[in-house]
Amino acid sequence: MKVLIVLAHPEPKSLTTALFNVTVDELEKLGHEVKTTDLYALNWKSAIDGADFPEFHQDKERLVITNESGKAYHEHKLTKDVLEEQAKLEWADMLILQFPLWWFTMPAILKGWVDRVFSFGLGYGVGYSAEKPHGTRYGEGSFKGKRAMLSVTIGGPASNYKEMGVNGDIFHILWPINHGVLFYPGFDVLEPFTVYRTNKFTEEDFEKASKELRERLKHLETEKPIPFRSQNGGDYDLHSLELKPDVISPEEKGLGLRIHLKEQSN
Amino acid sequence: MKVLIVLAHPEPKSLTTALFNVTVDELEKLGHEVKTTDLYALNWKSAIDGADFPEFHQDKERLVITNESGKAYHEHKLTKDVLEEQAKLEWADMLILQFPLWWFTMPAILKGWVDRVFSFGLGYGVGYSAEKPHGTRYGEGSFKGKRAMLSVTIGGPASNYKEMGVNGDIFHILWPINHGVLFYPGFDVLEPFTVYRTNKFTEEDFEKASKELRERLKHLETEKPIPFRSQNGGDYDLHSLELKPDVISPEEKGLGLRIHLKEQSN
Repeated sequence: MKVLIVLAHPEPKSLTTALFNVTVDELEKLGHEVKTTDLYALNWKSAIDGADFPEFHQDKERLVITNESGKAYHEHKLTKDVLEEQAKLEWADMLILQFPLWWFTMPAILKGWVDRVFSFGLGYGVGYSAEKPHGTRYGEGSFKGKRAMLSVTIGGPASNYKEMGVNGDIFHILWPINHGVLFYPGFDVLEPFTVYRTNKFTEEDFEKASKELRERLKHLETEKPIPFRSQNGGDYDLHSLELKPDVISPEEKGLGLRIHLKEQSN
Repeated sequence: MKVLIVLAHPEPKSLTTALFNVTVDELEKLGHEVKTTDLYALNWKSAIDGADFPEFHQDKERLVITNESGKAYHEHKLTKDVLEEQAKLEWADMLILQFPLWWFTMPAILKGWVDRVFSFGLGYGVGYSAEKPHGTRYGEGSFKGKRAMLSVTIGGPASNYKEMGVNGDIFHILWPINHGVLFYPGFDVLEPFTVYRTNKFTEEDFEKASKELRERLKHLETEKPIPFRSQNGGDYDLHSLELKPDVISPEEKGLGLRIHLKEQSN
């Protein structure tokens, strides 16, 4: 398998980077081909703007990102750093995002990789038709057939992220990324690899985490992905994109993260 | 009221910026004092690293962000741009974050504002004690007594973000920000102001949105915040930080965003 690992940490001697190194080592031992993107080492530009679109003239025009992005992607006229990442994504069978959970989401630099690399026509704005008025996404899209996995280092203890944990359970915390960033453009998304309590990590904890990580990596090709429903597979109303009432009821939906409200509205 | 508005959009003529302008105008008309941070105009540095801590020497030491951040914050030895933002936050009674929803979360530059400004000792790592082993957060913390609100422009239609919408309902999508970024350090968080279908926005839509926005802004001081449970208020076990079983049951929790799975595990 061809695996692209994107790393987001400023410190080469960090736990995040150490787990990244274990991942590269194990994948190569297993015979996979590995490419990497070390965002901090690349001094990756995080903020998408007019300069991302060499044919766009800020002083003459108003920047509408979806328009410029779509045009530039279609004409292959994006900046060199973005084109390189898109080529790596095309080459890859699997994508691993390796990052510390900061404020319950990606570090800014990794969000910047998503913002700038997942162009209109590649990450979104794909496959519109009469049958699929919302396009091909959530189980379809440019990265269909590829796998993806988050590898996340988390400062707090696991209990804070359990089903009833105060931060919100980890499935919901990572939803915007697993579902909204990875499943959206078509990846099959594996359960994240998560390491908790990293701000109190010992050498022993690291040995244990490395061992678990290496074991996960042995099964990447065959592991069952998170069974997200595909958007165009029949479960969602094709116009409103709401889950059809016969599929699941609002009662079954329950409160979700609303359990963390002292009172419910409506 | 003293209001700080942080704007994240590269285009001065964008819808996001137009709503920002309406907000500044209306708040000043209402007699509030307004300060602003235009992240793109400032060329805001998004990626936190060793350079954020002037006393840190990359070649000599390993960067542990929580340590350096806490030290630098305590000694008031952060970079000028961060200190300015922290001073604005201290001055403000209310914070508004104005941004387009990109990939179901903040633009990278705004995440970078959170990553770099919410230092250890300010945004997190606050108030540890024997009674509060997890510190003061979620309803307590540095920003207790202040209010915050997200003002979000969203490309897709509202139905995609309703209770059963494919993207996940907006309460859950914005949870990591409303609860994890704002309530966490103590803000009272107001319901977000959201504008949908922005990629098909007409002049009429803008007039309607401006009117709704101005109406919301008239009541910012008195509007009831989202009733998040406070961490240390008795609803959560003080050690595991899981919601106590008598408060709400896993059955009431229901599936939440797991409704978007074809099958349930465990």
